[in-house]
Amino acid sequence: MSRPIITLTTDFGQADGYAGAMKGIILGICPEVSLVDITHEIQPQAVGQAAYVLSTVTPHFPPGVGTVHLVVVDPGVGSDRRPIAVRSGRAIYVAPDNGVLSLALAADPPQLAVQLDADRPISATFHGRDLFAPAAARLACGIELAEIGEPISLAELVTLSNLSAQRQPDGSWIGQILHVDRFGNLISDIEYPMTDDQSPDRRSRVAVWVGKDRIAGVIRTYSDVAPGELVAYVGSSGHLEIAVRDGSAATRLGVGVGDAVRVEGLT
Amino acid sequence: MSRPIITLTTDFGQADGYAGAMKGIILGICPEVSLVDITHEIQPQAVGQAAYVLSTVTPHFPPGVGTVHLVVVDPGVGSDRRPIAVRSGRAIYVAPDNGVLSLALAADPPQLAVQLDADRPISATFHGRDLFAPAAARLACGIELAEIGEPISLAELVTLSNLSAQRQPDGSWIGQILHVDRFGNLISDIEYPMTDDQSPDRRSRVAVWVGKDRIAGVIRTYSDVAPGELVAYVGSSGHLEIAVRDGSAATRLGVGVGDAVRVEGLT
Amino acid sequence: MSRPIITLTTDFGQADGYAGAMKGIILGICPEVSLVDITHEIQPQAVGQAAYVLSTVTPHFPPGVGTVHLVVVDPGVGSDRRPIAVRSGRAIYVAPDNGVLSLALAADPPQLAVQLDADRPISATFHGRDLFAPAAARLACGIELAEIGEPISLAELVTLSNLSAQRQPDGSWIGQILHVDRFGNLISDIEYPMTDDQSPDRRSRVAVWVGKDRIAGVIRTYSDVAPGELVAYVGSSGHLEIAVRDGSAATRLGVGVGDAVRVEGLT
Repeated sequence: MSRPIITLTTDFGQADGYAGAMKGIILGICPEVSLVDITHEIQPQAVGQAAYVLSTVTPHFPPGVGTVHLVVVDPGVGSDRRPIAVRSGRAIYVAPDNGVLSLALAADPPQLAVQLDADRPISATFHGRDLFAPAAARLACGIELAEIGEPISLAELVTLSNLSAQRQPDGSWIGQILHVDRFGNLISDIEYPMTDDQSPDRRSRVAVWVGKDRIAGVIRTYSDVAPGELVAYVGSSGHLEIAVRDGSAATRLGVGVGDAVRVEGLT
Repeated sequence: MSRPIITLTTDFGQADGYAGAMKGIILGICPEVSLVDITHEIQPQAVGQAAYVLSTVTPHFPPGVGTVHLVVVDPGVGSDRRPIAVRSGRAIYVAPDNGVLSLALAADPPQLAVQLDADRPISATFHGRDLFAPAAARLACGIELAEIGEPISLAELVTLSNLSAQRQPDGSWIGQILHVDRFGNLISDIEYPMTDDQSPDRRSRVAVWVGKDRIAGVIRTYSDVAPGELVAYVGSSGHLEIAVRDGSAATRLGVGVGDAVRVEGLT
Repeated sequence: MSRPIITLTTDFGQADGYAGAMKGIILGICPEVSLVDITHEIQPQAVGQAAYVLSTVTPHFPPGVGTVHLVVVDPGVGSDRRPIAVRSGRAIYVAPDNGVLSLALAADPPQLAVQLDADRPISATFHGRDLFAPAAARLACGIELAEIGEPISLAELVTLSNLSAQRQPDGSWIGQILHVDRFGNLISDIEYPMTDDQSPDRRSRVAVWVGKDRIAGVIRTYSDVAPGELVAYVGSSGHLEIAVRDGSAATRLGVGVGDAVRVEGLT
């Protein structure tokens, strides 16, 4: 039989005991859970980056109420931002209501949301351990959302407004860099459902502007170009990415999270 | 039914195969164990830092003989420092006898300790793999301490002498920075059981000195102050911490592990 | 009963969702698997380093068809390098056929190899998620190699040619640095099966040259020398290593991966 799964996405880093304390709490409540670290290396309090990284993994976990995605990137800990749990068609999400779930829920629409009750006194600074982890563990082990909080309006969940590229009057798209991955690849917020069977012709009509550089055409994969070449392509998350084969586009272009990207010729 | 748990705390880093080799050994002996990485990013041979990080997680794991905390921060590998296993009311600990268990055992008193036998030839440099991991796996799967080593005196376990703040004749406390976390928060060895319902009056009478800076008052949580403000508060581990909201106190003050902290007005 | 094991060795780093996406795929196919991260910190596209790190862990995992080592260090993704699965006496390996399995298979000879079929459309850039992870999950859960690919010749598996030290006409050995570990220890490709019971006499006749430095003799363990001393010894993986006690040999000598090592007096 399937074991429940809890994934963890935080900005705690890996040198402290924060993630470990959360795991201890979880295993005490739901011992049979399978714990999966997505990352603890979200930049401190970078809600947008966490939203992106989370959205690249959630579609790949098995659907079912036994999968819980626990996200603790929480600049507002101790303030009145709401702690929430959200049930969708594929999974349950537990997080602060600060928009960190925006991208994941855009692809996996929410069906029910609750504001978490604190069932015991909790610390003022570590809601990950004292509030979010216990809630995630109970949900993974089969407790219903309604038993751990009061229903809230789906329409009032916080969403991040600056995470989607905008189409311009001239037909081009302007977006931004969402994330720089380990290889220095620049991942934009421009979703680009170009499939492998599209014509090279069509790909060659596209131009991508990032910083002062113009990249002509969109390639299929790194190995289509020579080492050191600057290219644009559609990454494994369906977003337009800019990369240098066997190198770092972030270093080459001096571009990072939040910088602008413009795409012309996309039809 | 509950699965046994082994937590791992080491200074091995995450780019080598050291932790992986230990996990292979453990899974060969006790396949049903749930492995939980606390951290492998303890600074090389930093026994005091490891003692602190361990003490922040052990209270949060479920009590029972099936929870084993395995700690390998071992400057003395190959010397005559003793390899030990210790049973307390909550858990079992496996580590070199160099004081790395001091803080955890202060909160969870030891009941029995043994010096581990080597039951086969072992390498001179990697006791984590050849001695500590097999012992932890056997204990997690139900073997008794007495079967894997000779009892030793609890009074003779090595303790770290410089990990507790000292009260001064004038009533102030002098302690030191135990750990700098990912956010640049400075965590002191001054335990400060101030609860959320204490009066703001009492909190405001306290002053904290670190480096050349004086911080007036102890706040409840970050969100009580403006971004950029330097504050003292009681962290989630019950220790006095110094932080900059949305910034790094370590960078701002130029202070790190081992530097002094003084607290006045604490009653 | 034993649960199947999948180990993961990649160059994905830990700040992205790449490893997490692979784990989601794996748990959807084989929910009972025990996932073990070896490392995601292989230097980008460093096939030789990955081959070394993998070879230090594979001998320590329990033998049996339920142990799968999944390795994704894949400079050739999107090219015509073959995706493979290999069965040996101890385990199953899933990786690109680029030599990354060379060292592990030298100690654990392959018995059967197949080229993986893609059973659905896959992305051009993330075969780890779309091809290797599903294959590893099926194999861990008991599917036969022959059901997921076509047999290929064992003799034609790619091997790395520059990972073995060479004996010179004068009897000395010339090798290179394979890996620098977290402590700055330099690990060479010179395997040196010197056991603890060998005579100090024999050890003292050996000299190791690295960079411009000559190290006289091979010691048993760090604690035989004073802090700061530069030494050679046989590491826990059976390779000759160069280290500075309580320091970093890599920093001291200015030596790194690929630099030469020469050993005289080894008989």
